[in-house]
Amino acid sequence: MLSKNQLKYIQSLGQKKPRDEANLFIAEGPKLVKELLASPNCKVVQVYALAEWIKNNPAVRADIIEINQQELEKISHLATAHQVLAVVEKIKWKGEPQFHGTLSLLLETIQDPGNMGTIIRVADWFGIKNVFCSPDCAGIYNPKVVQATMGSIARVRIEYCSLPEFLKKHNDIRSYAAVLDGRDITKMEKPGEGFIIIGNESKGISAELLGLANVRITIPGKGNTESLNAAIATGIILSHFV
Amino acid sequence: MLSKNQLKYIQSLGQKKPRDEANLFIAEGPKLVKELLASPNCKVVQVYALAEWIKNNPAVRADIIEINQQELEKISHLATAHQVLAVVEKIKWKGEPQFHGTLSLLLETIQDPGNMGTIIRVADWFGIKNVFCSPDCAGIYNPKVVQATMGSIARVRIEYCSLPEFLKKHNDIRSYAAVLDGRDITKMEKPGEGFIIIGNESKGISAELLGLANVRITIPGKGNTESLNAAIATGIILSHFV
Repeated sequence: MLSKNQLKYIQSLGQKKPRDEANLFIAEGPKLVKELLASPNCKVVQVYALAEWIKNNPAVRADIIEINQQELEKISHLATAHQVLAVVEKIKWKGEPQFHGTLSLLLETIQDPGNMGTIIRVADWFGIKNVFCSPDCAGIYNPKVVQATMGSIARVRIEYCSLPEFLKKHNDIRSYAAVLDGRDITKMEKPGEGFIIIGNESKGISAELLGLANVRITIPGKGNTESLNAAIATGIILSHFV
Repeated sequence: MLSKNQLKYIQSLGQKKPRDEANLFIAEGPKLVKELLASPNCKVVQVYALAEWIKNNPAVRADIIEINQQELEKISHLATAHQVLAVVEKIKWKGEPQFHGTLSLLLETIQDPGNMGTIIRVADWFGIKNVFCSPDCAGIYNPKVVQATMGSIARVRIEYCSLPEFLKKHNDIRSYAAVLDGRDITKMEKPGEGFIIIGNESKGISAELLGLANVRITIPGKGNTESLNAAIATGIILSHFV
């Protein structure tokens, strides 16, 4: 049973400001919550779950509060509330990210939360460890982004920063900008390291960032559609580069 | 100015039953409407547009009704209504689809409208002409699917049918089933023709359909995430096969 204050508090974590102030985020559903509970990178503060979930997860070592379906629906951000919701501390990554000998992603102005989460997920599939995002990308702790990552949020390090400054600082590493008139990625050698830059879907990569990139790359197409979804483009490029 | 009846009628086309009965669908936004107006495959029945759009599109030969922003918002299915909405006849494709010497897609139980539309779009990017869907896939004329195709709906032939029966009928053409434990697509030769089967994201391809497929294929991954989004998997496979 949740008090009114508890209800309000959990609901507030769906919004950016309260989330940032509390340094917490929420994650939902048995699969995602299980992954976060098992991750060495995550600290789950509280679990709100139906009796069914609690029964099926006897080994979980976390502070669990049993709630009913009606309460779950009130705190859930999913279209269909699903058994369990966890409140989790924002992830703190240890040490400095490594860029040599590996590929990293740079995302500029990816505003759709679904796209953002899906890009993190596909990055994880291909073993990418670091993703750097312009400050105007969708926030990684937005509930829609968290859900779309399907747990990859706990395995891929995501940071927000000025991408032009980032490229200037790390100009010893080659950067590849995904554009519509660049080199055919299917005919290039796999780069052993580098930054892959993905821009906003309708506007593409900004002129400033493009000016700083070393190589323009393109996914060759045959049809008439003007562009690819940003997450799909990321997946295709990684599948050829990794 | 729209009458109450007109308003109700256009709104009703957001739902499957009235849409099927009228044999019509709706499409929104300047880019998509412009593509459908220009497509030889589409017949636009009616355009509802703001004065601004009408002024910017003087050459359009269609029945146009000027409406105001408030009216547009009432009939729009977008989060942000955008200048114009068109009522379009469902597309009738002429002749028989050709499968020899080309790749086609088979989609089984793709239920998310955004995924469905994005798959059509990526198919179009790679020049795929034919997509066959199991009857429980999201409907292609669902407004969310139409918008996500970004105009590819007018260039890719989409049909709904029993996929097992389809494969049995066309068993002279090789079929490739996307699974998690198949042959590495990055090490295969590009097939000149064939059917690529994409299954439901959480359940994958049904046992029945899998039993009928010739080759199991897989996108090699490095990370820990269990699977890829269905639209991303489609894009990656096509980028290696086309």
